[in-house]
This record gives sequence, C-alpha cells and structure tokens, in this order.
Amino acid sequence: MTVVPWEGLPERVTIYEVGPRDGLQNEKAIVPVADKAEFIARLVAAGLRTVEATSLVHPKWVPQLADAEDLLAVLPRAEGVRLPVLVPNERGLDRALASGISEIAVFGSATETFARRNLNRTVAESLEMFAPVVARARENGLWVRAYVSMCFGDPWEGDVPVERVVAVATRLMDLGCDELSLGDTIGVGTPGHVTALIGALIEAGVGVDRLAVHFHDTYGQALSNTLAALRAGVTTVDASAGGLGGCPYAESATGNLATEDLVWMLDGLGVETGVDLPALVETSRWMAGRLGRPSPSRVVQALSRGGPRT
Amino acid sequence: MTVVPWEGLPERVTIYEVGPRDGLQNEKAIVPVADKAEFIARLVAAGLRTVEATSLVHPKWVPQLADAEDLLAVLPRAEGVRLPVLVPNERGLDRALASGISEIAVFGSATETFARRNLNRTVAESLEMFAPVVARARENGLWVRAYVSMCFGDPWEGDVPVERVVAVATRLMDLGCDELSLGDTIGVGTPGHVTALIGALIEAGVGVDRLAVHFHDTYGQALSNTLAALRAGVTTVDASAGGLGGCPYAESATGNLATEDLVWMLDGLGVETGVDLPALVETSRWMAGRLGRPSPSRVVQALSRGGPRT
Repeated sequence: MTVVPWEGLPERVTIYEVGPRDGLQNEKAIVPVADKAEFIARLVAAGLRTVEATSLVHPKWVPQLADAEDLLAVLPRAEGVRLPVLVPNERGLDRALASGISEIAVFGSATETFARRNLNRTVAESLEMFAPVVARARENGLWVRAYVSMCFGDPWEGDVPVERVVAVATRLMDLGCDELSLGDTIGVGTPGHVTALIGALIEAGVGVDRLAVHFHDTYGQALSNTLAALRAGVTTVDASAGGLGGCPYAESATGNLATEDLVWMLDGLGVETGVDLPALVETSRWMAGRLGRPSPSRVVQALSRGGPRT
Repeated sequence: MTVVPWEGLPERVTIYEVGPRDGLQNEKAIVPVADKAEFIARLVAAGLRTVEATSLVHPKWVPQLADAEDLLAVLPRAEGVRLPVLVPNERGLDRALASGISEIAVFGSATETFARRNLNRTVAESLEMFAPVVARARENGLWVRAYVSMCFGDPWEGDVPVERVVAVATRLMDLGCDELSLGDTIGVGTPGHVTALIGALIEAGVGVDRLAVHFHDTYGQALSNTLAALRAGVTTVDASAGGLGGCPYAESATGNLATEDLVWMLDGLGVETGVDLPALVETSRWMAGRLGRPSPSRVVQALSRGGPRT
C-alpha cells in the first residue's frame, strides 16, 4: 500500500469498536459466551483499545446479550483497554456497578419518533431518565459515553435539523457525559451535512475531542462521511469488525462501517490506529465462520479472495 | 435529504456511465441486444449524458459484447448525449468508423504486468499501438478517451509509483487523447494517494479538466477516493449503474463504484449531476432482474427495501 497523508487529518484516530455489542445484538442465533469472550480478546489483541462489550438492557429486549454478566465475569481487564457497556437506565447501571465496569454508554435519540419507538419516551423524558444514570455513574468514577441516534435522517420524520441534534447533544454534555457519539442510524448523511453538524456542535461549546461519529453504510456513505468528520477535527470513529450488524431489513446488507474498511483507508493515509489489519481480518473471518455467513466488509472479502494486502 | 455543500467541491460533476460496457462485459449470460439498447436508453432518460455503450474488441475476447455493431445500429443518437465505444486497436477503429461513432476510448495500463496480460504487449508497445488509432480517430473528428488501468496498485507488482502513471498518462495526452481516466483497477487506493496522483498530473501539464477517475470498490474505498478527487479539482467520475461489473473473483462482490451511491453523495452535497435518482434506481433494478441477482449498489438495495429516499 502506498501511504500518502492528506492535509487536515489527525495523526491518530481512536477506533471505538462496536462489533461485540452493536454488531452481534441483531443476530438471531445465540453466540456462546466463550465465543463472545474470544471475539473481544482477539479484537483487543489486534490492537483495538476500546471495545464495547455488551449491553445491560433487559434480557427480554436483546436475547443475544442476555448473558452480559456471564461475559463480563470472564473478560480479562488490561491496562489501557476500555470495555464499555451499554446501560439503558438505572437498573442497568446497578448491574454495571455490580459487575465492576469502568465505562458505560447511554443511548439517546435526536428525534421524537425514534425516542418513542426505542425508549418509549419523549426526547425530554429520555433525557430525564439519563440524568440520574449519568450523575450516579460519575459519582462512581465511571466514564460515560452518550449515543445520539438519528442525527442526520429519521425513517419516520425525514430530515433531522442540525439544531435538534445540537439541543439534545448539549443537554447530554450538560448532564456530565464524557463523549458523544453522533449516529447516522439509517445511513443517509453526506459529507457536507457531517461537517455542518460537527461545526454546529463545536460552536455550541462541545469540544471536538469529545465527539465521535457512528456511521452506517446503508447508502454506501459511511467511509466518505468518516473522512469528512476527520477533516472537521473528530478523532474517534465507531466501527464494527467485519461490518457486523446493522440492518434488520436484509440479512446480507451491511449496516455498520466495517472496521477493516476504515483501517484500510487510515493505513493508506498514514493515520495511526494501532490496529494490526491482518489479525483483525482473521478475527472477523473467524466470527463469520461462527455466524455461518461471509463478512460484509469489503476488505475482509478482498483479502479472503487473496487480494493484495499492501 | 439534507443538502449541505462542502467547501472545495465543483458545482457540477459529469458522470461517465460505464455499466453497459464495463459492467456487463464480465456477465456470462448473454444479455440480448434489445435489453442492452433499453438499458442505455433508460440510463440516458435518467439524465446520464455520457454512457459507454460497448466495446469493439475481438468478439472472441468478450463474448458478451460480440453484438456491438448490432447494438450501435439501434441506439438512438441525441443532441448532447455521448455514447463512447471502447476501441482496442486499428481494427476496432475501422469498425467504429464504419458504425458512425463519434467518441472512442482506448484502454492502456500503467504497469508492465497488466499490459502484458491484458494487451500482450509492453507498456511502450501498447502506446505505439495506440498512436495511429488516436491519430486516425482525431483526423476523423472523434473524441478520444484513454483509460489508464492499475494507477494505484497492481496485483502482481504491488504499489504503482505516481511517476510511472504520470509517464504513461502524459504520453497518452501527447498522442492527442482528449480525456484520461485514472483507474484504480483493484481498488486499493486511498484519498491521499488519489490527491497526490492528480497533483502530479496537473504539475506535469495535464489539465485537471481532462482528468476522470475510475474507482473500484473492492476495498470499500471508491466513494471516499472520489471525494478526494473532487477536492483535487476533477469533475468527471466514472461509475456503473447498480454497481454492475467488476470483480471476476467473486460473483456477488462489487467492483465498480455504483452510480447510485455516487449520486446520493453528490445530491447531498448539492453538486449537480443532472441524474434523476429514482429513475436510475428503477433502471438498475430492472437490469438486476434481467441478470437474475440483486444489484450490489447500497442505494439500490436501501431504496428497494423501502428506505427513505430523501
């Protein structure tokens, strides 16, 4: 691979790996705890230093992650490795604290329809619900990320105004969250919109070092939107090993930006990620074998066919 | 869709549609001439003003396009619509002239190995072969495009130095070609490399208005590389309706950048293309039905599942 930097990009990017949680949560066939633990261990060994491990939602809602405590009990903790866990409410926080977790994530929405459908609350009510979760998490010394979903478009409401996202995002930061992950949940955003949203958040006082982006590739836009976000100063990018997860509508459709496709671009741009791409690809191929179907990641597919590595 | 421009992009982009030629040429099942003609007519009706129609290579090499003259005989010609045809050599040019074609394309290589495998010649010999083709085409008033394949990486040679591409490209321009299409045939390039190559060509005296880019999505990089090319001043982008064509290694793998995914990004950026996206998507769905498998375009898939259009 010819490595050529591009002006305006950061020297280093933190990849926030979401495969084990966001990637697996929609899988119907239950992945055994041992495989989940091995998946996470292999991702960490491949150089990913932040891996969202699981979710402490009620087991009824996400059967795949009903084994969260069992998984957390066997995950090795290592210096410099963060294994955040999704926490939906105070009950989830209780479970997180009981499990000895150091980092949590809450999951909000920029739109009323998605808040109603996903959280059974208005946006304002969901923020009220998060307030004591975030406060108590911080009292206990936890690091807190907040996801904001539907930041660009919403399947029921259409275009999502930048001001709406800014209002929700700044409120979450006011609650005490450490990091905001801006989600293009349905994948409709384009680079100018990405840049505008990040610019508006910076103008509203949210430090760009506290922003992450979470793109879905449903319309093929995830990587170019990531490039725009990096140009706008963002240095944390969510991605899913092997492109796991995402679209509930079509089994083979990709949802999350594949970590491998992101790393390929960043390697070519000379942006450090600390990720060993061949080890990551092997990990995704292994998990694809466990799930019984090929990875939707283009890089995993290309390298699996014997395509050039470098 | 929220439309937000991004600094440094052109106001308008010309899409050079390659689906009927580059897209179909690897299809094993022969598409009837009437379907090919309808495909091209529908692409033109959807607003694509440059559609590469077919190839005048020896029928033995590309059986799918062995019907080139029959197709050219039935294609309607319209003011403002260009239907270039690939011409490999003087014999192909004879056929082009006999068919009343106004635009042709020749297909060169930046690397020796690909020149040997694809053209059975050295790079220097292939340029000698093109010289009389281009000269005679221009004497007859034809517009001439030159493809340069393997501009970023080569499966046998690895990294392709920028200087090698510049040498071949400037020689092709010296022969009298009107436009150069820079091909990332195996899809390994990244945005910094794209920018560097375009910059080197401009420095070597090739006007950026005479450059086009031709990206393959084998490693998921096609759209972000396109974004980098647009930032570098390129205004002509090759794409294939429905993402048709490309990889000979895996049937379902995408090869060419899908025109729909490109148009989605450009629509969101407020960059004019003249393309009616819903009409284009319908065309690609129709052709996918003819070919008996779904389009690999993410946008075609998303809209086919009922995803938001705007």
